[in-house]
Amino acid sequence: MRIRLINPNTTVSMTEAMTACARAVAAAGTEVSGVSPGMGPASIESHYDEALAVPGLLQEIARGEREGCDAYVIACFGDPGLSAARELATGPVIGIAEAAMHMASLVAPSFSVVTTLARTSGMAWHLAERYGMQRFCRNVRACEIAVLELENPASDARARITDECRRALAEDGAEAIVLGCAGMADLCAAISRDIGAPVIDGVTAAVKLAESLVALGLATAKRGELAPPLPKAYHGLLKEFSRP
Amino acid sequence: MRIRLINPNTTVSMTEAMTACARAVAAAGTEVSGVSPGMGPASIESHYDEALAVPGLLQEIARGEREGCDAYVIACFGDPGLSAARELATGPVIGIAEAAMHMASLVAPSFSVVTTLARTSGMAWHLAERYGMQRFCRNVRACEIAVLELENPASDARARITDECRRALAEDGAEAIVLGCAGMADLCAAISRDIGAPVIDGVTAAVKLAESLVALGLATAKRGELAPPLPKAYHGLLKEFSRP
Amino acid sequence: MRIRLINPNTTVSMTEAMTACARAVAAAGTEVSGVSPGMGPASIESHYDEALAVPGLLQEIARGEREGCDAYVIACFGDPGLSAARELATGPVIGIAEAAMHMASLVAPSFSVVTTLARTSGMAWHLAERYGMQRFCRNVRACEIAVLELENPASDARARITDECRRALAEDGAEAIVLGCAGMADLCAAISRDIGAPVIDGVTAAVKLAESLVALGLATAKRGELAPPLPKAYHGLLKEFSRP
Amino acid sequence: MRIRLINPNTTVSMTEAMTACARAVAAAGTEVSGVSPGMGPASIESHYDEALAVPGLLQEIARGEREGCDAYVIACFGDPGLSAARELATGPVIGIAEAAMHMASLVAPSFSVVTTLARTSGMAWHLAERYGMQRFCRNVRACEIAVLELENPASDARARITDECRRALAEDGAEAIVLGCAGMADLCAAISRDIGAPVIDGVTAAVKLAESLVALGLATAKRGELAPPLPKAYHGLLKEFSRP
Amino acid sequence: MRIRLINPNTTVSMTEAMTACARAVAAAGTEVSGVSPGMGPASIESHYDEALAVPGLLQEIARGEREGCDAYVIACFGDPGLSAARELATGPVIGIAEAAMHMASLVAPSFSVVTTLARTSGMAWHLAERYGMQRFCRNVRACEIAVLELENPASDARARITDECRRALAEDGAEAIVLGCAGMADLCAAISRDIGAPVIDGVTAAVKLAESLVALGLATAKRGELAPPLPKAYHGLLKEFSRP
Amino acid sequence: MRIRLINPNTTVSMTEAMTACARAVAAAGTEVSGVSPGMGPASIESHYDEALAVPGLLQEIARGEREGCDAYVIACFGDPGLSAARELATGPVIGIAEAAMHMASLVAPSFSVVTTLARTSGMAWHLAERYGMQRFCRNVRACEIAVLELENPASDARARITDECRRALAEDGAEAIVLGCAGMADLCAAISRDIGAPVIDGVTAAVKLAESLVALGLATAKRGELAPPLPKAYHGLLKEFSRP
Repeated sequence: MRIRLINPNTTVSMTEAMTACARAVAAAGTEVSGVSPGMGPASIESHYDEALAVPGLLQEIARGEREGCDAYVIACFGDPGLSAARELATGPVIGIAEAAMHMASLVAPSFSVVTTLARTSGMAWHLAERYGMQRFCRNVRACEIAVLELENPASDARARITDECRRALAEDGAEAIVLGCAGMADLCAAISRDIGAPVIDGVTAAVKLAESLVALGLATAKRGELAPPLPKAYHGLLKEFSRP
Repeated sequence: MRIRLINPNTTVSMTEAMTACARAVAAAGTEVSGVSPGMGPASIESHYDEALAVPGLLQEIARGEREGCDAYVIACFGDPGLSAARELATGPVIGIAEAAMHMASLVAPSFSVVTTLARTSGMAWHLAERYGMQRFCRNVRACEIAVLELENPASDARARITDECRRALAEDGAEAIVLGCAGMADLCAAISRDIGAPVIDGVTAAVKLAESLVALGLATAKRGELAPPLPKAYHGLLKEFSRP
Repeated sequence: MRIRLINPNTTVSMTEAMTACARAVAAAGTEVSGVSPGMGPASIESHYDEALAVPGLLQEIARGEREGCDAYVIACFGDPGLSAARELATGPVIGIAEAAMHMASLVAPSFSVVTTLARTSGMAWHLAERYGMQRFCRNVRACEIAVLELENPASDARARITDECRRALAEDGAEAIVLGCAGMADLCAAISRDIGAPVIDGVTAAVKLAESLVALGLATAKRGELAPPLPKAYHGLLKEFSRP
Repeated sequence: MRIRLINPNTTVSMTEAMTACARAVAAAGTEVSGVSPGMGPASIESHYDEALAVPGLLQEIARGEREGCDAYVIACFGDPGLSAARELATGPVIGIAEAAMHMASLVAPSFSVVTTLARTSGMAWHLAERYGMQRFCRNVRACEIAVLELENPASDARARITDECRRALAEDGAEAIVLGCAGMADLCAAISRDIGAPVIDGVTAAVKLAESLVALGLATAKRGELAPPLPKAYHGLLKEFSRP
Repeated sequence: MRIRLINPNTTVSMTEAMTACARAVAAAGTEVSGVSPGMGPASIESHYDEALAVPGLLQEIARGEREGCDAYVIACFGDPGLSAARELATGPVIGIAEAAMHMASLVAPSFSVVTTLARTSGMAWHLAERYGMQRFCRNVRACEIAVLELENPASDARARITDECRRALAEDGAEAIVLGCAGMADLCAAISRDIGAPVIDGVTAAVKLAESLVALGLATAKRGELAPPLPKAYHGLLKEFSRP
Repeated sequence: MRIRLINPNTTVSMTEAMTACARAVAAAGTEVSGVSPGMGPASIESHYDEALAVPGLLQEIARGEREGCDAYVIACFGDPGLSAARELATGPVIGIAEAAMHMASLVAPSFSVVTTLARTSGMAWHLAERYGMQRFCRNVRACEIAVLELENPASDARARITDECRRALAEDGAEAIVLGCAGMADLCAAISRDIGAPVIDGVTAAVKLAESLVALGLATAKRGELAPPLPKAYHGLLKEFSRP
């Protein structure tokens, strides 16, 4: 089974780190290939960044289709372009926020999300609502850590994130933690050990959900909302996205 | 007051038609200028189309800012890129679905949306939820008319839309109609006369809301979620979206 | 265009103050006339006060209809008698809580209401729910200022309201403020300047919404729930409300 | 125990009929006295009627307090003035819509309301939401029978209501029926027998709830929202409502 | 009228205490008999305890049916087995959480639940949702008192519960208190006096609701979800539950 | 990895059939063992059946713990005893309704449940609400097929279920189908082929989710609600459930 892990930002070192996490949980027969789009933002920290990450992401879905991928993971906690990607792809597409929240709801009656910048909290709440997970979500907490700071080994990011996780358990009454950024994937096990509660990372969770759907023979419903995009001309810079 | 009406698809004839409608309701001192982006889809009928309309839309917001626009209207019923546009713009930005639904809730206890293709119904429901308007929305009804068919004078689109509006009153118990496509703006008055109930078009509604906000001295809150996008490098085809 | 601003309490000085605010934002061709009913409470601070303000309000709507008013604003934050007024009036009727909340949701992802007495908070929450605005409302905060104290220039009301607005931003994470009393209309601009966030006053917001609806040719749907009241005899003190 | 049953309309024959129903279910030691206000509408079939029924209702609460009543029932399915009445009264006040819906939820997983005029359906839905009963309410069905037609022995009202109840069971999947008008109280047992499902009348349900609360020593919470109305001057026709 | 009060745990002293409370509020003609099942847990403080209390409870319902009981009260705040009991019983069955929450909503715009162990808070919230009472429930507060500690006269349980009730009023803004354990029934009046707000105990509330339903001739709807269980073989330890 | 599949009814032929389905999707290293409890109902078709299936189910969880199982699947669409099982088990426990609904929401914007008897529809709706999946669930449709009829090769059950699935797509606008009974597991692939839409069976979906959680190192949060049951005496028939 071939799973394409798409990091929608263009920071390749981050893509490599999360791909390593993904491979560590993949089943024997699963091949995970990680990619970053050729266009878009270096990190995603606003609606603007998110919107402009989507064209590159869709290009990667189109390439994955040509290369015969069985499923896709969108590895940014805003799940950018998820519905559009599902229209394009034949196999399942999973967002990491979606994956983490669903998995969290299977192991705990409540969770809090611990994320990077406060300005993205609203997006996390909005996703929780869309996925039906709002009822499990006690809080969305920001550490005010920039996404790319997670890449910096000299940063105290891990300690600050762990502290925020502890506060979530104590103050929110959350019983599990959802990590709110793909760049936190490699911290998951250590934080869980430190705080003594389940910590769910969306990258690895999404890989297992994608594998599961493929194993079950399930793919996106193509009647109705998520049917392939209609043939149509695109203009200007984006003319290569035209659908014949 | 200068209001920029952005039709996020690239079909200029449609932009002209809706700009005419907008001007017909604008106040004496309001100048409405209508534009289409230089890149993107000819019409918006899927999540894929919507995602790819956003970069061009954001370019137009950026241009509007340079040109000193006081407010913006996003003239596609999916309200694509609304939050990202609000991050970029100094003045208010209004989506036409948002405008139509809010206005409908002020004149009727319930409404139904009458739109083009059934595959976009889910998006309309999603917007109704986001805006808090779900409780007023009885149904989203599709006429299965392609967006560009609305441009064709030989089409029976108007009759089919009017019929669907009548069914909405009779079958859904709706007390008003929200037109679910910017391309229907010029049909609004005639349909209202034909069916004897309020019919709300988002293009004109959004122009009046934008005017109202400017008159009240209100603009998008810049603390928190909708602060200006952070300085950041963009790569590839989209490098011109970099923020210094 | 003639807009009738009805202050449902009988305190004429308050009516004059809010009428001045309304006129300051009205468009060139709009004539705003402010009235207080001839019967009812001096201020509205309970369900009892609110219920007893409604007959006088309805009398003013009936008078407005005879005088050819195009639209009405109900200028008390509880929006008393709104549905009954809509049954009576030919043109649109807007409540100031309704107006402020809708406008707030167009400029910010969240707001808190800052109001007079804590005992009225439940009414504000109830209105937020009815209008679909509960999802945007982070908190309803009371300053424990009596309504008529707002009229007293020697009072420290403005300072206390401003403080409460600041706390709403800091503690609730609200990104905008809705003022919860018509008597605060004249404080709106100053508080916004002081706290550096959008502050929405319902009186002025409602005037612009009423103007907008009239410009769009929209009036209350008269099929169903808001059809004119049926002909009927009224007895006793209220016999003048009989409908022939 | 003294329970005051207030029919908020001025039609005394209807008051007498519902008082008889109330007495039939009252406990041995309960004295039920039925009254109609001296002012207000002959029947309640709109928001306008409802608003104008409230002053007379509040007068009756005030009288009841002077006469030492232990509890009150507001016997109109719109539960007009319920919160204001609770502010005034020392003992519990129960609305009949409230009573019927709560009781229905104790004997069936779902109910439909069968009421008089379709224009009042929205009010019933609104009450269901306020009381938390929306999740149990499958439908609100109107028979298009005027309230006073229920008083007419020559009318086919009973047959039409029974038919509508049967349709509610068959088409809505409702498992119980809530009668949507105090004027239907005397039909309750017969309809239940005819349709073979629980039928709940609010008048009798409210009497039992009022009795229960008094027996439990429970009365309206007087901290916060439902504290007694503040001392205040009332003007004009309503000056007798002033609170010293 | 014969009401069977079933304490679903096997601690007979607790059954006796709550039966005394029940009798103190029962009407003249009502006979309340209290029972504990012959099998199950000594107290109910987890999902496991709750699940294993249900068979014994159902046995008591079956016995009550043979003995001609008119109604049943399930006297544990988790309302264990309520739907199954309703399938079995001819007359009404009331849970004490259900009863207390409904009654609280009739006397106050909001309540907090004060219960025993924090681990059961989730169940209380879940019940509030099921009964439509979530909108009235401000908080569920635990005193970390084991259920059987309530039986111990030397314990400081009453003082700790009273303190928690006071905090609920002050910190949650609750206007009434719902006691979250049948074992607190005898504290109800004293705590209400101490804190000066309505305190609702479910045992006594349920008795009055059961009496009321019987007086109204209402019993569980037997169409659909709560029809009698189908004839069926049961195996092993539970074979006596087989339905012929 | 050892997954224990517990069919909570006592019909062993059904256990065998679903175990075969489970094994067909399990990963290479996963060993699935299917069991039926030694006590309880032959099939689960009411709240009564469900309640009485739980003790046997909990016995199997306890046995699984002694035998070192890594995860559990509860293979009845009512997910009976799920929370109690989670308290007992060290590893994850997944219900099949939960699994099917979550998986469906990952491949389609909406689904309908197609189940056996109409009287169980309310339970399916209730689970959808608990899991946050109500927003995706268009309808719950019953075929009025008894659970054990699914075992009968001469029955026309498959054709009737397939017809109901087709109606769900056409009439509900559902884009995927969730099968509402573990006994339908072996029909899943064939029905999906016949109707041309994703069909999700909970048994296989739960096995993949259980595998995924184990692979991710995730187990039920043991702080708070789902901590192990407290030590406690159980009496009578159930004394063997005592916790030391």
